[in-house]
Amino acid sequence: MHTDLVAALDIGGTKIAGALVDGGGRLLVRAQRPTPARAGAADRVGAAVTEVLDELSAAADWPRAGAVGIGSAGPVDAKAGSVSPVNIPAWRDYPLVAQVRERAGGLPVTLVGDGVAIAAAEHWQGAARGRSDALCMVVSTGVGGGLVLGGQLHPGPTGNAGHIGHISVDMNGGICACGSRGCVESLASGPSIARYAGEAGWSPAPGDEASAAAVAASARAGDLVAIAAFDRAARALAAGIAATATLVEIEIAVIGGGVAGAGEVLFAPLRRELGRYATLSFVQGLEVVPAQMGTDAGLVGAAAACWKLLEDGGGTGGGGTGGR
Amino acid sequence: MHTDLVAALDIGGTKIAGALVDGGGRLLVRAQRPTPARAGAADRVGAAVTEVLDELSAAADWPRAGAVGIGSAGPVDAKAGSVSPVNIPAWRDYPLVAQVRERAGGLPVTLVGDGVAIAAAEHWQGAARGRSDALCMVVSTGVGGGLVLGGQLHPGPTGNAGHIGHISVDMNGGICACGSRGCVESLASGPSIARYAGEAGWSPAPGDEASAAAVAASARAGDLVAIAAFDRAARALAAGIAATATLVEIEIAVIGGGVAGAGEVLFAPLRRELGRYATLSFVQGLEVVPAQMGTDAGLVGAAAACWKLLEDGGGTGGGGTGGR
Repeated sequence: MHTDLVAALDIGGTKIAGALVDGGGRLLVRAQRPTPARAGAADRVGAAVTEVLDELSAAADWPRAGAVGIGSAGPVDAKAGSVSPVNIPAWRDYPLVAQVRERAGGLPVTLVGDGVAIAAAEHWQGAARGRSDALCMVVSTGVGGGLVLGGQLHPGPTGNAGHIGHISVDMNGGICACGSRGCVESLASGPSIARYAGEAGWSPAPGDEASAAAVAASARAGDLVAIAAFDRAARALAAGIAATATLVEIEIAVIGGGVAGAGEVLFAPLRRELGRYATLSFVQGLEVVPAQMGTDAGLVGAAAACWKLLEDGGGTGGGGTGGR
Repeated sequence: MHTDLVAALDIGGTKIAGALVDGGGRLLVRAQRPTPARAGAADRVGAAVTEVLDELSAAADWPRAGAVGIGSAGPVDAKAGSVSPVNIPAWRDYPLVAQVRERAGGLPVTLVGDGVAIAAAEHWQGAARGRSDALCMVVSTGVGGGLVLGGQLHPGPTGNAGHIGHISVDMNGGICACGSRGCVESLASGPSIARYAGEAGWSPAPGDEASAAAVAASARAGDLVAIAAFDRAARALAAGIAATATLVEIEIAVIGGGVAGAGEVLFAPLRRELGRYATLSFVQGLEVVPAQMGTDAGLVGAAAACWKLLEDGGGTGGGGTGGR
C-alpha cells in the first residue's frame, strides 16, 4: 500500500496530541490525552503516548502511515532517541523513540524538539514559506524556537537547535530556571512579563488573572508600567533575534505563541529595539512577522520535520528501516 | 593544465596578503602589501590588491591556480561580491570580486568573511579537524568567528555568518563601535580588557604598553584587578559561546588570536564561566580549546573556503565555470 501519511505526535507539558497528517498538511485523524506531567511516574506518561498511538492506529487510514514524526518539549536527544522535557519531570532520558517504534509496528521514527517542529511548520506552510534562512519562535509560557538555514531545517545533531529561550542576553542578569543568567525566556516569557509588571505596581483588572494578556490590555490602554514591561521583553527578544541573525544569517524571524498575540503592543517595540541590536549591514534587513500557523503547528511541524529528515537521509533519532 | 592550486587573498586592516596554496595547505608563493587603510582612497587600497595579485600571477606556478579565494575583514557581501570592512573605511560596497576576477584572468572567485576563513582553516587542518559542528574564533583587537555546521562550512548567504563579536550578551551594557550594546567584542577584545583594567587602577610595568598581554602578565603574577579583567572577558566569551551552542549545537569552540595567547589566564575562567552559561543538557559537553593554525590561517582558510564552496556548487560571490 502506498504510504502517503505521517503519524505525528506533539508531546507537551499539558497534552500529548497525535494525528495522521497528509502531504498537504491536513490532519485526517486526531487523538489527544492530557499529560500526567506531575504524577511522577514515567510509565504513566508513556501510557498516555501509547493510548494516543493506539487510537491513531485503530483508524482506517493508519496503513497509509509510512513513518512517525515526534515533536517534543525539550531538551530531546535525537541521537539516543530519548527525551528529558523540562516540563515533564517524570521523563529523564526517557526512551521515547524505541517505545513509539515498537507500538507503531516498526515504522521509522524521527524526533525533534518542539521548536524545530514549529519552524518546520512555518517553513512548510506558514510565514517562513519560501525563505531560505529563518528563525521561528514561540513566545508563551516559555520561549522556544527552531531554525531554517540554507533552505533546510536545522535540527542540529540532537534535535535541539534554535533554543533561543535559553541564550543569555544579560550575562549579569537574574538566574533563569535553566541555571544560566539573563536568558531570553526569563525576560520575555508571558509569566516573566506579568511578574515584572506586578513587581512595579501593575495589577490586573478586578477578577482578571495577572497574565501577559492582561498586561497587554493595560499597555493598550496607556498604562506606563505595562508598556515598560513589554518594552523590556521586546528588548530581550530583539537582542536574541539579532544575535541569531548575526551568528547564522537569517532574513526573517517569525513569532507565535500567546505573548505574540499581544500584536503591536509587542511587535512595535520589538521592531524598534531590533534596529538598536541588529546593526551590522548584513542583518539590517531582517524582518519580524507574526506566525501564521495555528494551534496545530506542532503536529503539522512534526510531520513536516519527519518528511524533511527522511528525505535528507537523516531519520534523526530513529529513521531508516527499523531504526538504528 | 591541471589546476591544483588556489590563489588565496587575506584582506585585513593592516596588510593584504596573498599566496598560492596547494591541496595540502602549503603556501608555495607569497606576496604582501601594507593596507593603505587610512589613506581615504578606495583605489589606493584596490591598487595594493592588484599588486599582490600581479606578484602571484608572475610566479611560475600561477597557471596551476584554478580559482581565487578571498577572506576579507567584514562585513562582506558575497552575493554582491563587495566588501565594507569596518577597519578599511575607504572601502564601502567596494566591488572587490569583480576587480580580482578581471585581474586574475577570469578565474572563479569566492569571497567570505575573515572569520569564516579562519573556521575553514581550523576545520581543514587545525583544532576543529574531523568535527561536525564547531565555532572557530579570533579574540584579538576585534572578536570574530566562523561556523562549521553538519560537517560543512556555514558562511551564510552573504559570507558573514559566525560574527560572534557583535552579538549582545549584556543588552543594557555599553555602546559598541557597531552601534549595538554589550557586544562580546566590547567586553572581550584585547583593547577592552586593557581599558577595563586601566579604569580600575591597573597599570602596566614601566615601559610596557597597556595591552591585554600586559594585563595577562599581571594576572599571572596575582594582580586582582588584572584577574578580574580577564574574568569579565571570559564571562562575555562564555555567554557568547554558550549562546552559539544553544542556537545551532556545536561540540567544540576553537579560540585563537592574541588574547587567546594569554593561555590559562583566559581559558581557566572561560571554562568555569562556560559551565554557568552552557546549562542545557545538549550543550554541557561543549569543549573549548586553543586554535592550532598559525599566522597563515587567513590564507590557508581562504583557500579552504574556496575549495569547499566550489565543491558545494556555491562559488559565493563569484563562482562558476572553471572550478577545479
